[in-house]
Order: sequence, then C-alpha cells, then structure tokens
Amino acid sequence: MIPVAIMGHGTVGSGVAEILTTHKHKLFKSIGEELYIKHILDLREFPDSPLADRFTKDFEDIINDIEVRVVVEVMGGINPAYDFVKRCLLAGKSVVTSNKELVAKCGAELLQIAKENNANFLFEASVGGGIPILRPLSQCLVANEVDEIAGILNGTTNFIFGKMINDNMDFDDALKLAQDLGYAERNPEADIEGHDACRKICILASLAFGKHIYPDNVYTEGITKVTLDDVKYADSLNYVIKLIGDVKKNDEGKLEICVCPMLLSKDCILSDIDDVFNGIMVKGDCTGDVVFYGKGAGKLPTASAVVADIVDCAKHLKARKRIFWVDGDGSNVASYKDSITAMYLRVAGDGEKALELFPDSEVMKADGNTVLITQEYRFGEIEDKISALKDAGVKVLSAIRIGNL
Amino acid sequence: MIPVAIMGHGTVGSGVAEILTTHKHKLFKSIGEELYIKHILDLREFPDSPLADRFTKDFEDIINDIEVRVVVEVMGGINPAYDFVKRCLLAGKSVVTSNKELVAKCGAELLQIAKENNANFLFEASVGGGIPILRPLSQCLVANEVDEIAGILNGTTNFIFGKMINDNMDFDDALKLAQDLGYAERNPEADIEGHDACRKICILASLAFGKHIYPDNVYTEGITKVTLDDVKYADSLNYVIKLIGDVKKNDEGKLEICVCPMLLSKDCILSDIDDVFNGIMVKGDCTGDVVFYGKGAGKLPTASAVVADIVDCAKHLKARKRIFWVDGDGSNVASYKDSITAMYLRVAGDGEKALELFPDSEVMKADGNTVLITQEYRFGEIEDKISALKDAGVKVLSAIRIGNL
Repeated sequence: MIPVAIMGHGTVGSGVAEILTTHKHKLFKSIGEELYIKHILDLREFPDSPLADRFTKDFEDIINDIEVRVVVEVMGGINPAYDFVKRCLLAGKSVVTSNKELVAKCGAELLQIAKENNANFLFEASVGGGIPILRPLSQCLVANEVDEIAGILNGTTNFIFGKMINDNMDFDDALKLAQDLGYAERNPEADIEGHDACRKICILASLAFGKHIYPDNVYTEGITKVTLDDVKYADSLNYVIKLIGDVKKNDEGKLEICVCPMLLSKDCILSDIDDVFNGIMVKGDCTGDVVFYGKGAGKLPTASAVVADIVDCAKHLKARKRIFWVDGDGSNVASYKDSITAMYLRVAGDGEKALELFPDSEVMKADGNTVLITQEYRFGEIEDKISALKDAGVKVLSAIRIGNL
Repeated sequence: MIPVAIMGHGTVGSGVAEILTTHKHKLFKSIGEELYIKHILDLREFPDSPLADRFTKDFEDIINDIEVRVVVEVMGGINPAYDFVKRCLLAGKSVVTSNKELVAKCGAELLQIAKENNANFLFEASVGGGIPILRPLSQCLVANEVDEIAGILNGTTNFIFGKMINDNMDFDDALKLAQDLGYAERNPEADIEGHDACRKICILASLAFGKHIYPDNVYTEGITKVTLDDVKYADSLNYVIKLIGDVKKNDEGKLEICVCPMLLSKDCILSDIDDVFNGIMVKGDCTGDVVFYGKGAGKLPTASAVVADIVDCAKHLKARKRIFWVDGDGSNVASYKDSITAMYLRVAGDGEKALELFPDSEVMKADGNTVLITQEYRFGEIEDKISALKDAGVKVLSAIRIGNL
C-alpha cells in the first residue's frame, strides 16, 4: 500500500479522490501496489464524504507522517501552497501539482529542491488539463530540437471566441455565458487578460528550452479589445481569431515568447479547435508539427492528469524522473519589439494614411472603416507606425497579430 | 557510453543513425551518458557512410556482443526480424522497433519474452510515426478506462482522399501521384487495402485493453471502392470520407474493432486532418476526447520516435518499463455483424426500393442515382438488406459507414 496525501478538496482535489477510488483496480494493475488516500487537507468540513475520516486541517499531520511519500497539491494560488510544497520536497516527499501559478512562479526553485532531496516534482496537469503534453514533450520528443510551441492554452477565452464566431454574441454576453456555465470565474481577469495562458506558455518554454521563463518576461495581451466586428472581418478574410501562447527560438538563439490574440488562417489546424478545448502544437526539427488536443480544464480531465503523475511517483519512489530546468534571468528572452509579424489593422475612414505607412497591405472596406492585412514588420516598428497614425488623427480601432504557425 | 546496434539501414534506420549523430548533445543531456552506434546490420554495402566501419552483414556480431544492451530493429517484415528480435530479447538485450507488422503479429509473445528476461521491448514508432501515442496512452492516460480509440492511421490513403476531395482527382490518379511522391509503395496493397491501418489499430487495441488482438480478428476494408462521386456527394452532405481504424468496448464488454472508410461529419476534429498527416483520438472516461496529430510516417519523424525509445531503454537498463499485454484468442472481439452503424448508400435509379428497406433515410438525388443516409442498424442487418436490394435488381453503387466519433 502506498499512502498518498491530498492538499485541497476543491474541484480538482475531489476529482483526484474520486479517480483514486473508482479506478483503484486499474491503478493497482499499473503500479503493482495499491494507492491509499491517507490524509486530505482542507480547512472546510466534509462530514458526508465517504473519506470523512481522512480529513485534517493541519498540514503538520502530513509533513510529519513518514509513511507518506507522495503528496498532491491542488489548492491553487501561491500561499500557502508554496510553503507546503517546499517543506514536502525538503522532507524527501514527492509532490504532484496542478497549480500552474506555482510552477510558473517557483518551478525552477522547487525542481532544484526536489533534485537535492531525491524526490519528484511533477505537474502534468498544470498545462492542458487532461491533455498529455509535458511528458510527451520531455520523453517522446526528446530526439528533437524544439523550434516552436504554440497553443490555445485557455479554454475560457476559446469558448468566448467560439460564441462570438458561431453565435454572433458580443464579448460581454459571451463572457457572461461562460461565467453562467461555470467556465469563467466571477473575477475573470486571469483568463481574459491572458495571465492563465501566460503561466502555461512559461511552463512549456521552461521545459522545452531548459531555463525558467517567468511570466514577467512574457509580452501578454488579453482578449478584451477584440470586438465582434473584428471576428466577422477576420472570418470574411479566411481567418479565425484565437488567444495564442507562442514561444520560438529566433536566429540569434533567443526566445520570442508572447501571449496575445492572433488571426490564424483557417488552414491552420489550431483554427479548428473550438469550444473549451485546448490545442498545443509542438514543432520539432525531426517530427515536424505535432498537435495535442483535448479538454484543458474541468474536474476529471485535470484530476486524471494528476493521478497519472501520482502513478509515476509511486513507480519511482526510489528513482527520480528527469524532468528539470535551471533558473533563468530572462536574458534568453528577446524583446517583444524585435519579433516579426504581419498585422490585422482596422482604422476609421478610408485608410489612405494607413496604406501610406503600411504599403502593399491587403485592403478591405468594412462598414465605413478600412481593414488592412499588412506585410511583415518588426513589432516595434508597427507600434511606431500606429503611434504616427494616431498622431495624424487616424482612429486605430483594432490591431491584432497575424499568426504564422 | 551506451553501445547500440541498429538492424537495418533503410529509410528509418539511416534516420536513426542520423539523429543519434546530429542530436548527440541533447541526448547526452537527457540520459547522462553517451549513446554510441557500435554495429549496423545490413546486407548492402555503404562504403561512403561516415559510419562505414560499423557495418556488418552478420547478426552474430550483435547477438554475441555482450556490451550491446540495446538493439534497434528497423528492417521491417517478419523474417528475419522476428528471429533476430526474439534472440536479442532471450539474451536480455532490450529491443526497440518501428515494425508494426512484427508487433501486430508477434507482440504478445515478444513482450512475454522481454518480461521473462528483464528486457524492454518498445515500439512507439510502430503507430503514428513521430506522433507520441503509445507512451501517452499507457502512462498519461493510465487513470482512464479507455472507451474508444479511432484514428486516421495511414498517411498514404489520407493523402489520396485529400487529392480526391480538394483537387478533384480520381482514385487511380491520386494513387499514382502518391507513388510518384514516394508516399505509396510500388505495390500499394498494404496501404490501400487497409492492412497497414489494421496493424496499427491492433497494436493500439492490445495496449489499451490488455489482450493481444491479431489482424485476422479485425474486419478490414480498404479504400479502392470509394469513387470520386462518393467523395463529392459526401461533401455536399457535410461529410468527409476517411479511412478509419476504430476500436471500442460495447455494452457486453466485447471489442468492436474495424478498419474501413467512413463518412465523418465535418464537425469531427478528425475530418480536418489532411494530407499525409495522421490523427488518433482516444476517448477516456475521465479525459473525454484527446487527439494526437502529426506526421505518421517519413524518415526523421519515425526515427525520432525510435530514438525516444532508445533513450528510454538506456535510462532503464536495469528496470523494466511496464508496457505489456497478454496473448489473446479473439474471444474478446465482437462479430463485426453486431456493430451498429448508419450507412451512406448510393443506388442506381430513383431509390424507391432502397427507401422501403431503409425507411426514414435522408435522401439526395445524385446525377440519376440516389444517395441515402440511413438510420442506424446492426451491420449484419445492413448486409442482408443490401443483398435483398441486389436480388431485387437494384444496383448498389456504394455502401460506406457513417462514423459516429
């Protein structure tokens, strides 16, 4: 019997307890031993739970139990998750987490502590929910140099875009529907401002390129400025708007990394990913494009990824998995101004001035305004040109990157 | 240094040698030791190869070299691959192969021999080429009961359908183009008759459900009867025709497994998979639908999956990976006649008789013929009805399953 402690009994935590109970037989067959939930840490009361006798409000019950070698952290947030995880790893206990905020902020430090204490720190569920991505990236694609990773990493914003595209809803109505359906939090900032997607691209970039990338190093733009009009004009130009997290190595070996809305050609496989689904494209130098698709959130999908990590820890109680990256100071990240992109611009009026600054653009008249699909420029140059337009009295209604995936 | 032997220096074998050479540094970082190509077995001469001094024509050089603990089999076919692999495993050497024919025919036996000799037998490259699928299925999705696996498993046939759909080519011209481009063999039978896809769905089913499924147990239908007209009519009804390998558990716990052309709704994510790409959908009870997409064949994609397995073997020289299934006698496979499906039928004339036998079908007139999308029936019943139609003098031009994925 392998005793496990679960810290947090919210959506994901209760899902983990459920899978460990309902899939006991299958997990036993895989490990050769039984997983046993010994402690569940939560400040709330769950008197009616069939596991009621396992609950504790005191972390010391877990850290002091030398039998417990595998601890699951599914509380979310930095405090007290960070302290608890750190103390578990320092005590040589392996930790499994779904906490993307924690991994994006403290991953390098916690991986180092895990290494020094011969413990595992695994977090498959932190990116893409139930979609296998971190393990395939580090194991199956190990014979590749990764050139680029780009993905739809946030299901809530993808759901909102879907409602705008397919049901003609405007942004506020689509957001409200997402909240009513439980996809978006009452405070939706982390989703719609791109912070959630940013944490995930940080984790993917750190793993793929070996050095920690912190959210502060990433140019991040949310979806709040995208209007229903933009969605429609994009559609008529054969594009779909998606919130994309993207990291790629440029010619100088630096990482170009960003989170922002992008127009994707309808030929791009990511443009077909609808609803709350996530899709992550990895471009390897040997494999070419590989895409992983599935539910990026939700109780059981996320919990199933946590349980897969628990199984891995249980099989490797004496050995460490080689999932690792070193700390980084952002010096391997290129300035977002240096990235090269074409733009979708929507300006009020006839667009004459915009066409002077962005010659050879594809032009479409749009209800008294003008839409331009520009040639490619340095992003810094694009910002300068847009400032110049504004200085010249041109109203710039939208400016969205064209994805080149 | 970990010495490796490669049996076969064709497309995949030379790709493996290339990646082991060009990605030496990255592989070293992952394993902590260097992989070294000690022997390459091939009956042909490669005097100009930079590895010319490693070539041998004699398998005994490999089997008798006690330093070699990891052997790669990329010769293809059953003979002599089967004998060589078996002898390696009996000698306690781990074997990595891309040989789907070998795994589909002898997987259970070879896995058992590997187990008894504390060796690994890994074959990620045998399904989906460079797409990570077997490892994610057995590790990342371990907390799921698999309900169904369905996939576009053969890039050649998918390329042919793509040319028919997008470029209006008929089957023969599309096949010839595939041959000219090197996607299809001069003898294309294994691809177009579905045997290649059948081997792959056998491997996936064996791994997901734990008992070996042999190709003989699988209802297999190729794509040679699908005409350009069918592709066009399907398109106008909002379907796309794909060659699908499919396995699912029915209500009696038996496996319904088949390889055949299917009409997929354009809403199905697999319908978007074009060109030589493969896509494999796994339906887990916790994750819901997860899809893996990428290049299912080709030198470097396939070789990169082989190298990932080599790395896994190198990291587990003393331990066995738990990839395993037991032998099977087909008793867990349901009769294909018992599967339930709707059908696309194309009959000559006004379709009156067909509509009597398949009432409540969706009907479309098609250049003097009639297309029916029927309700769902047992496949055996459909066969009987089609026989009855023929007996009544009705010319049945096409009969294709409607996929329900």
